[in-house]
Amino acid sequence: MKQVIVVNVALKLPKGKLAAQVAHAAVAAFLEASPIAKQAWLDEGMPKVVLKGDTVEELVKLHAFAVQSHIPACLIRDAGRTVVPAGTITCLGLGPAEDSTIDALTGHLKLLS
Amino acid sequence: MKQVIVVNVALKLPKGKLAAQVAHAAVAAFLEASPIAKQAWLDEGMPKVVLKGDTVEELVKLHAFAVQSHIPACLIRDAGRTVVPAGTITCLGLGPAEDSTIDALTGHLKLLS
Repeated sequence: MKQVIVVNVALKLPKGKLAAQVAHAAVAAFLEASPIAKQAWLDEGMPKVVLKGDTVEELVKLHAFAVQSHIPACLIRDAGRTVVPAGTITCLGLGPAEDSTIDALTGHLKLLS
Repeated sequence: MKQVIVVNVALKLPKGKLAAQVAHAAVAAFLEASPIAKQAWLDEGMPKVVLKGDTVEELVKLHAFAVQSHIPACLIRDAGRTVVPAGTITCLGLGPAEDSTIDALTGHLKLLS
């Protein structure tokens, strides 16, 4: 089991802001998972990776695929009080779900270092 | 209600790694909150801020104060597969809790930009 958060790197968010948005995505996607998926992921130590998405369109497309695949998925829009305009999509939280199910969607994306 | 994640900035983690650790702290501290605190925070849109902690000692001290104050609190230790030695404390998740309760502990810390 794992969780993947795909970041809209085009926004070039400062690191604290980015971390808060990724955390938002992690909690929001977690809350959409089934009780069984939640517990399995917690038992494994909540593995998660943060990947690069190049554009908003890519995040929106991945979200649609995830919904079709019954993967917990949540697009995060910034409240817009600070760095970016309100409603800007900053990241996408996916899972917890089976590694292979998530990799089928996001296996081509690069790790955000 | 809000959640605060205090980051050990001494580690100078790369931004993707930092974001994953902050997300870990957010989920872990959330799971320690009472059902009432959880729901109140979700209803408010999950406000969270990421603050700078200068040292591991500061995070450990804040964690102890939070436990005394009955604030949900979770120190995150890295699994150590990649950037830092296993067991290194990377961040501290606090809350969700009342703004004033959390500010009493962390009001002196600076925002991580």
